[in-house]
Amino acid sequence: MRNVELDQISSLAIGAWILGAGGGGNPYHSFLNLRELYREGKRIELMDPTELADDDWVAVVSSMGAPLVGEERLQDPELAAKPVKMMEVYLGVSFRGIMSVEIGGSNALQPFLAAAVLGLPVIDADAMGRAFPEAQMTSFAIGGLRPFPLTLADVRDNEVIVARAASWKWMERLSRKACVEVGSTAATCKAPRTGKEVKDWGIRNTTTQAIRLGQVVREARRLKTDPIRALLEAERGKALFRGKVKDVKRRTTEGFLRGFAEIEGLDSDRGHVFRLEFQNEFAVGVLDGEVRATVPEILTVLDSLSGEAVGTETLRYGQRVTVAVLPAPPLLTTEKGLEFVGPRAFGYDLDFRSVFAP
Amino acid sequence: MRNVELDQISSLAIGAWILGAGGGGNPYHSFLNLRELYREGKRIELMDPTELADDDWVAVVSSMGAPLVGEERLQDPELAAKPVKMMEVYLGVSFRGIMSVEIGGSNALQPFLAAAVLGLPVIDADAMGRAFPEAQMTSFAIGGLRPFPLTLADVRDNEVIVARAASWKWMERLSRKACVEVGSTAATCKAPRTGKEVKDWGIRNTTTQAIRLGQVVREARRLKTDPIRALLEAERGKALFRGKVKDVKRRTTEGFLRGFAEIEGLDSDRGHVFRLEFQNEFAVGVLDGEVRATVPEILTVLDSLSGEAVGTETLRYGQRVTVAVLPAPPLLTTEKGLEFVGPRAFGYDLDFRSVFAP
Repeated sequence: MRNVELDQISSLAIGAWILGAGGGGNPYHSFLNLRELYREGKRIELMDPTELADDDWVAVVSSMGAPLVGEERLQDPELAAKPVKMMEVYLGVSFRGIMSVEIGGSNALQPFLAAAVLGLPVIDADAMGRAFPEAQMTSFAIGGLRPFPLTLADVRDNEVIVARAASWKWMERLSRKACVEVGSTAATCKAPRTGKEVKDWGIRNTTTQAIRLGQVVREARRLKTDPIRALLEAERGKALFRGKVKDVKRRTTEGFLRGFAEIEGLDSDRGHVFRLEFQNEFAVGVLDGEVRATVPEILTVLDSLSGEAVGTETLRYGQRVTVAVLPAPPLLTTEKGLEFVGPRAFGYDLDFRSVFAP
Repeated sequence: MRNVELDQISSLAIGAWILGAGGGGNPYHSFLNLRELYREGKRIELMDPTELADDDWVAVVSSMGAPLVGEERLQDPELAAKPVKMMEVYLGVSFRGIMSVEIGGSNALQPFLAAAVLGLPVIDADAMGRAFPEAQMTSFAIGGLRPFPLTLADVRDNEVIVARAASWKWMERLSRKACVEVGSTAATCKAPRTGKEVKDWGIRNTTTQAIRLGQVVREARRLKTDPIRALLEAERGKALFRGKVKDVKRRTTEGFLRGFAEIEGLDSDRGHVFRLEFQNEFAVGVLDGEVRATVPEILTVLDSLSGEAVGTETLRYGQRVTVAVLPAPPLLTTEKGLEFVGPRAFGYDLDFRSVFAP
């Protein structure tokens, strides 16, 4: 267990936004909330999953919905904590800690918001190692763990519990409909996990990873070196394309932000076009008509100068960006993993082929 | 408390179908289920609301969804009981009895199905005195009672609890979305009511009323007299139009069956056209372009010969029908009542004017 400094949360916001693969929402608003909570004297501890007892209970939180809507509505620590409290009452358990369902985007900070309100530590793990759009796209689903119950709350006074779901897909469908109905953004507590389940199936130490990633970027900026190069070296990532955004199409539909962006090559990529398709997160990258990268590897778009991540909801004409890929957590690229988060799970008739394959 | 004979349930099915105002679904399938349960030796008791203690808990059940879908899927007593059991577990209470949210259509028999499984009596009351399409169109909503929680189950293994809702409309929205997602039909247990609430705000003795109504129709058939005349005399109803169905338009959308039917006059109504608009139930009746009857009064369409009710989902070209109106429970036509179930609550820019006004 170690204290998390505000400076580390600042790095976490940058790193998580990169790991978000364009989705998960910009963590900046959540960071502002946390800065305020730290000013009020709140401190949050980060707990390694190995410190969990097998029969501890861990809350798995996320802010669910379309990133574009999430951007328009500030995060609220009380709201983040609400579904966690609902779950404790519903199951009659006490949580040992709080983890995020996804380390990508603002959801990396969601457990910190809830933890600050509830006085619990954040568990250094998530269930994606990045961000994904749907509830069944998790290591816990890949592990065949129980998909229910889920608690959901909105800013009005609506509270929904999905008490049982016939499958992970049914959990996604039922919770998504509730989320869309309350305005395409809701605070949720997913199926709670035991300490053993987190140790067996969680993607471990991803909060630490995201903090490190943010630190690397910030350090490069301070030293006026290339933050993207620093980041790719530190995370063994790969740059795919450099250019200028020339076309973006997106629509918010059924609780998701869907669309594509096209990038016109610059420098050594001049004369080429890179197309990114997304459902909240970037799912597929296509160079001159040829697929070059797909989920579950982490397709990320970075401001070519600052190394700041660019979200699917903030992409706009004229931005100078670098498309990069970071490795996916190994579990996600197993055969079982690809069933849940491979290109076919996103509706693409494509086999997964790693960008990092020899 | 008195035993309900199978013969009375047979009458209930006929009477409830008439009180359904075209909605609530044909009770016949539920009746077949109950006949089977009676053959197995089950017996159900009917309890007058006055026998309830103030602090008893009463389950309020309904099969929710679009009638057309309900018709295609046979009722299942275990499924009817499931949300009641969910509610007992969720709230940690034991129910004293089970009532229907609406006496109209198959939902009049829903508490009997659940009661047979759970060994509880049926409470002789409902919250509409007829059938209405939406969750907030009840005497309990008119009384300003709490709209939550609600439990919902489907045939797969999905279970949703709407733990809190910001208003009755929000309860309708959230439960409707869940219902639509599981296939536009689901078994629900609405917000439980105390004995005092049922006595104060329930529409009382409507099961008895529906049984009596069915008995009148059956007796007229047996005596080969006009069942419609007998029924209107017994219930102080009024025949509005007699004719032949010449046009029906309906669509199942967002968990409702919406549309209209046009009836060409016969006999003394020859040369005239009567139009009925519906959302699950008949909402407005228009004679030659002039509004003649509206919710909350009970617009019902009857087979001109047999007196059997015709549902919005079974109306078809060529049927010879009589449009009749039965009085609404007095609470529904109060100023407060009309807010919830008057023509404006259905989107019509019309004031309510009683068919029975002098």
